Amino acid sequence: MTLHNMGEQSVVAKRVLSTASTSQKNNALQAIANALRDNAQAIIEENKKDLENGKQLGFSEALLDRLSLDKKRIDAIASSVEDIISLPDPVGRTLGGTVNSSGMKIVKVSVPLGVIAVIYEARPNVTADAAALCLKSGNAVILRGGKEAINSNKIIASTMRDAIASTGLPQDCIQLIQDTSRETANELMKLNKYIDVLIPRGGAGLIKSVVENSTVPVIETGVGNCHTYVDAYADIDMAANIVFNAKTSRPSVCNACESLLVHKDIAEVALIAIYERLKEKSVQIRGDEATCEILPDAVPATDEDWGKEYLDYVISCKVVSSVDEAIDHIATYGTGHSECIVTDSYEASQKFLNQVDAAAVYVNASTRFTDGGEFGFGAEIGISTQKLHTRGPLGLPELTTVKYTIYGNGQIR
Amino acid sequence: MTLHNMGEQSVVAKRVLSTASTSQKNNALQAIANALRDNAQAIIEENKKDLENGKQLGFSEALLDRLSLDKKRIDAIASSVEDIISLPDPVGRTLGGTVNSSGMKIVKVSVPLGVIAVIYEARPNVTADAAALCLKSGNAVILRGGKEAINSNKIIASTMRDAIASTGLPQDCIQLIQDTSRETANELMKLNKYIDVLIPRGGAGLIKSVVENSTVPVIETGVGNCHTYVDAYADIDMAANIVFNAKTSRPSVCNACESLLVHKDIAEVALIAIYERLKEKSVQIRGDEATCEILPDAVPATDEDWGKEYLDYVISCKVVSSVDEAIDHIATYGTGHSECIVTDSYEASQKFLNQVDAAAVYVNASTRFTDGGEFGFGAEIGISTQKLHTRGPLGLPELTTVKYTIYGNGQIR
Repeated sequence: MTLHNMGEQSVVAKRVLSTASTSQKNNALQAIANALRDNAQAIIEENKKDLENGKQLGFSEALLDRLSLDKKRIDAIASSVEDIISLPDPVGRTLGGTVNSSGMKIVKVSVPLGVIAVIYEARPNVTADAAALCLKSGNAVILRGGKEAINSNKIIASTMRDAIASTGLPQDCIQLIQDTSRETANELMKLNKYIDVLIPRGGAGLIKSVVENSTVPVIETGVGNCHTYVDAYADIDMAANIVFNAKTSRPSVCNACESLLVHKDIAEVALIAIYERLKEKSVQIRGDEATCEILPDAVPATDEDWGKEYLDYVISCKVVSSVDEAIDHIATYGTGHSECIVTDSYEASQKFLNQVDAAAVYVNASTRFTDGGEFGFGAEIGISTQKLHTRGPLGLPELTTVKYTIYGNGQIR
Repeated sequence: MTLHNMGEQSVVAKRVLSTASTSQKNNALQAIANALRDNAQAIIEENKKDLENGKQLGFSEALLDRLSLDKKRIDAIASSVEDIISLPDPVGRTLGGTVNSSGMKIVKVSVPLGVIAVIYEARPNVTADAAALCLKSGNAVILRGGKEAINSNKIIASTMRDAIASTGLPQDCIQLIQDTSRETANELMKLNKYIDVLIPRGGAGLIKSVVENSTVPVIETGVGNCHTYVDAYADIDMAANIVFNAKTSRPSVCNACESLLVHKDIAEVALIAIYERLKEKSVQIRGDEATCEILPDAVPATDEDWGKEYLDYVISCKVVSSVDEAIDHIATYGTGHSECIVTDSYEASQKFLNQVDAAAVYVNASTRFTDGGEFGFGAEIGISTQKLHTRGPLGLPELTTVKYTIYGNGQIR
């Protein structure tokens, strides 16, 4: 099966799926959830092959854990699919309209994007999550997972395809690329003829490669060099609490805090308080000169540190002389993901909210909240850090585009 | 001045412009309109150089006409800038919001895209139009016009820059690339570090080159292989009227009709009626076998004709056996711009509206209406034929993205 064939089949499938009713799509989602549970044992068997391969290749314990599926995790995957059933159908919403001077009615409606390709790494749950979100939003999907999880992805995809077919929708609504070579990924990125949007989910290297090579429109996701700025008027306990949570609650995710900025007027007391908390998790602090003077345990930061997404128990730290310097620093080194100010100053909070250019800008709350579930979207397919299309978590409405339907009675221009 | 420097200056300018008030931006627009009128004589002198060069290079009369500026046209350009003053500011709209379970308030607001680059051809009015739309939407713009209009573009851009500076906003809100080489255009397409969105405006060749080479997110615009399908239940006079208007009112534009599909049951009478109208403008018909049998003047179409955007007094024509065949044909050869059905059948109209995948789908009206002004947007920077971000005319709201502003009081996750 060539990618060209898969593209053609996606286009055939999307034409059926794009006009499917909400209940048809929900039936297919329920069938998928049931089939995943029914097939759990077979999925676990295939997953074992991936784990064996991973061990032989010397994968870390953390990576093996992310790869691994058991009955509980498969049940959680099935439940996530079921959660999508209860979300509102994003297709067919009337978004606006007007009647022109000659009585022609123009109505703007939401329609599926069409064919979405998703390139992702390691975790096999993405196979089901992404497919379910695309299905509910009326989009055919072409999935290209990593080779580490290929056996798990194959059986999850074939389980879903069979389930869809059993409900009367085309199984090609979901297709998985079985060839995990880099060449195939590169070819996928050029399939403009069939694919409307490409979403990469993974590390900075994958995303960079997609942005540089894709001719298909891309939604860039996920890289987060997130800052927390502790202002001169911050509540020190709140600041320590927020930094501790944002850094250590899950260091491997994109909304974790990677860099700390502290106003000089409270640098000493704030840094010591924050350091006391971060110590609990043995977080390494890479500081500028002023930080290292206050915290003898801090390692001197190099210029590279300011732009770094560590995804680990490491944080960079700089003392700044004003909220403006903090905003400038974020403009220079931020990735436009999530940025936070801790302050009780109204003026500083407004300046920060207005001037920081990022998907999510926080006052007095952890950057870890940037997430489709936390924002009330119910689910997400990733977090956009580009500005085209949308920014922030990509929920179901973000997987649609618009169409103008026009009702005339002979109008000419 | 390198592109790198221009990029840096844009970023500095956008940070001021993105938080400028509506009245500051409107003052700058009024200053631009005044300056264009005041400078009309100097602009005409520079435009003469372009026209001289064009004549020496053997440009067609049509192209020379598009290039040419006189007092009346400059006044029209200034008036277009003034029209944008009265449009609502698209920045700072509250688009939604929620309060999470712990009392954290999440508000979605519209913000400028940031830095927009526009690559365009020939017509110097685009220089002022695009710059004015970007300014009102709070975006810094880098313009790269064609070499045919470089002298006109230079003086229009410098006139606008001086006008902006006189009102206190940074002149680098508008920058023009003076080097019109292909290398510079290619370099611009890779400036992800500074540019948020790239909009090409021009012919199919330009747009293809941008889509293939740009790593900056692109809004694909304008290529329109638009169809008019005359259904079995069409009013023949209305059909002839709509096809005549859609084909001949301005054949060089993207919303002009390029291909005619006619249901077999009324093919003979409909084709003869349409042919009688098209004859007035000496439109060449390239028909399939059935068309050529009915219209002896028709030229046999080749396979290439079905995918062609003629932008001329030429139309392809095919007899189809059903609305489904028409929809299939459009799915195969359409460019997702504007498609029309002429019918009095409710069922056929609904099927066509639901199943045709294009920015604008018409029942009983000319495709020529696909236009920001006609849709009530007041102005447009182009017509998107891709699905990411938006489809159809790009008005001021389409030149913004979103930001989530979050108000907490110590929330952690």
